[in-house]
Amino acid sequence: MQEEFLKACRREEVEFTPVWLMRQAGRFLPEYMSIRSNHSFLEMCKTPDLATQVTLQPVDRFGMDAAILFADILLPLEGMGIDLEFAKDEGPVIHNPVRSQKDVDALKIMDAEEATPYVMEAVRQLRHELVGKVPLIGFSGAPFTLASYIIEGGGSKTYLNCKRMMYAAPTVWHALMQKISEVILRYLKAQIKAGAQAVQVFDSWVGCLAPDDYKEYVLPYSKYVMDGLKDQGVPVIHFANNGSTLLEMVKQAGGDVIGLDWRCELDSAWQRLGYDVAVQGNLDPFALFAPPAVIEGKVKRILAQAAKRPGHIFNLGHGIHKETPLEHVQVLVDAVHKYSRLSLSQLLED
Amino acid sequence: MQEEFLKACRREEVEFTPVWLMRQAGRFLPEYMSIRSNHSFLEMCKTPDLATQVTLQPVDRFGMDAAILFADILLPLEGMGIDLEFAKDEGPVIHNPVRSQKDVDALKIMDAEEATPYVMEAVRQLRHELVGKVPLIGFSGAPFTLASYIIEGGGSKTYLNCKRMMYAAPTVWHALMQKISEVILRYLKAQIKAGAQAVQVFDSWVGCLAPDDYKEYVLPYSKYVMDGLKDQGVPVIHFANNGSTLLEMVKQAGGDVIGLDWRCELDSAWQRLGYDVAVQGNLDPFALFAPPAVIEGKVKRILAQAAKRPGHIFNLGHGIHKETPLEHVQVLVDAVHKYSRLSLSQLLED
Repeated sequence: MQEEFLKACRREEVEFTPVWLMRQAGRFLPEYMSIRSNHSFLEMCKTPDLATQVTLQPVDRFGMDAAILFADILLPLEGMGIDLEFAKDEGPVIHNPVRSQKDVDALKIMDAEEATPYVMEAVRQLRHELVGKVPLIGFSGAPFTLASYIIEGGGSKTYLNCKRMMYAAPTVWHALMQKISEVILRYLKAQIKAGAQAVQVFDSWVGCLAPDDYKEYVLPYSKYVMDGLKDQGVPVIHFANNGSTLLEMVKQAGGDVIGLDWRCELDSAWQRLGYDVAVQGNLDPFALFAPPAVIEGKVKRILAQAAKRPGHIFNLGHGIHKETPLEHVQVLVDAVHKYSRLSLSQLLED
Repeated sequence: MQEEFLKACRREEVEFTPVWLMRQAGRFLPEYMSIRSNHSFLEMCKTPDLATQVTLQPVDRFGMDAAILFADILLPLEGMGIDLEFAKDEGPVIHNPVRSQKDVDALKIMDAEEATPYVMEAVRQLRHELVGKVPLIGFSGAPFTLASYIIEGGGSKTYLNCKRMMYAAPTVWHALMQKISEVILRYLKAQIKAGAQAVQVFDSWVGCLAPDDYKEYVLPYSKYVMDGLKDQGVPVIHFANNGSTLLEMVKQAGGDVIGLDWRCELDSAWQRLGYDVAVQGNLDPFALFAPPAVIEGKVKRILAQAAKRPGHIFNLGHGIHKETPLEHVQVLVDAVHKYSRLSLSQLLED
């Protein structure tokens, strides 16, 4: 197996910087859309053969250095008793949003293998398919991000109901976060047991919070998940989207690798975090709409900021956009592989 | 006139911390909605009597320490030849988005008094109405934020067309930004000439940019506007929403007061900026949905972070939300006025 991704997670020397892209198994790929045209999104998630197929697509096409399981962050919620639907063009809709202590009490903490057997089966199939290729990353939403869907009943621009619960009903909030954290921990442990060789925890919407609120209402639960994964023997990537001001606390919560979005400079962000943790990132996903020469320049700039320090995984600063030109993705992957073999002085000269 | 706001802008000692709220003349007020029910949004903007009335409402109701002109950031675009419409429930729609050099060439740079006479008239009326009360703040969108509307044809989640133009057609981008900057500068100068006693430049959407892109594609134009305002004799507030990682460059672009959103801690942000500039902020707008005691606690925390240093204006970290409970706004204003009179040791003890 090509080991660069796992080596970088462990901050070991690598021959070249490994690269994968958030949402790489997704709608920007014609081969994905061709399967999607015959199946609903949830059907694809729940059919291990299909999930396996689309997980492999970007690895085969672009030579990504890791595969990330095709799944949705909301899947583990169904076992809790959440009534989830992916409405056409509207994103996820939750028909029974959680707003009270009674709602929280009704939520179940299920065994992950029982609640999401298709996820674990996809992981097992993928490990089989990926023999001699690249490592498999499993993943989950972070406690805040999953709570935000459960409370808001879907996506949100404001997170008003979330914040209202935090401030006005903190007991309910904490009870909910406790349950969600336990579900996430079990879900990730089950993925690791099934064969995931690394896991990423996505705190996609936590950037809506002020730092003091993150500290009081979120950090303890993200930390609970991270602490519980420490003895599982695989690296954990912790990504707090739009979390530039939260980085120190994200590190405190835990993770072997801290994901960086594109709003920060990788060099100063890594310095703030300290070099005892690896980093992942951080090209603006929309930089992939730039001409190849601009993409290459931006790749070199990020590599120069990483300064050949062991522990950098190249990624976008957020999921890849569905309209991204395919050939530009290849430009990116090739540029990372090519330029990361240069010495730092060559990188800076170039 | 009550001078605390202007004193704080100039970093002079104040008796209490002045407070106003972004979007304070707006939909959360029943007296605003009552006028709005008889007039379209654009009608209200273009009728000085109505604009004057709604500008005064929050000052009269809550005792805000500054009035901010009721207007829309897109108003100066009409004079440029932009075909603007406020579609029902959809926000602004621009029917002729700018995508090419030819589109840019067609844009006019109008005299602001000619293009937006109703804005200047509202400023004059307001100064008359505000005699003996509080200062009047004028405002404009920043170059990037206005460019984003012009290019995208309205609001955007991705700013894809903007970024595509930056990267693939930089000459067109720079030509557009030059024209917009000139229009903004003239628009703000005209407001100051009409009587605005301070102006705020809103870079509402600039938080979508990576720092290197801000530096190359935006900073020179924001700086052009700020430089042009230096000899106008009124303080300038520069607010880059979701710009926590851009703060040093925002200061470099200019402004007597730097606006802070709620994602950063006021103390560390001010330290990064340096104490030779004033700051404005930075309560999460959704903290106003919390019970009064929580609001008061958060006000005290921000005041303690400002540490009685001259040059703090209290505000939200973004515009007030339309569903905000009125009585909580009063709790906020009263708490700022009350607790900012305490000594720092009392604030920290409390």
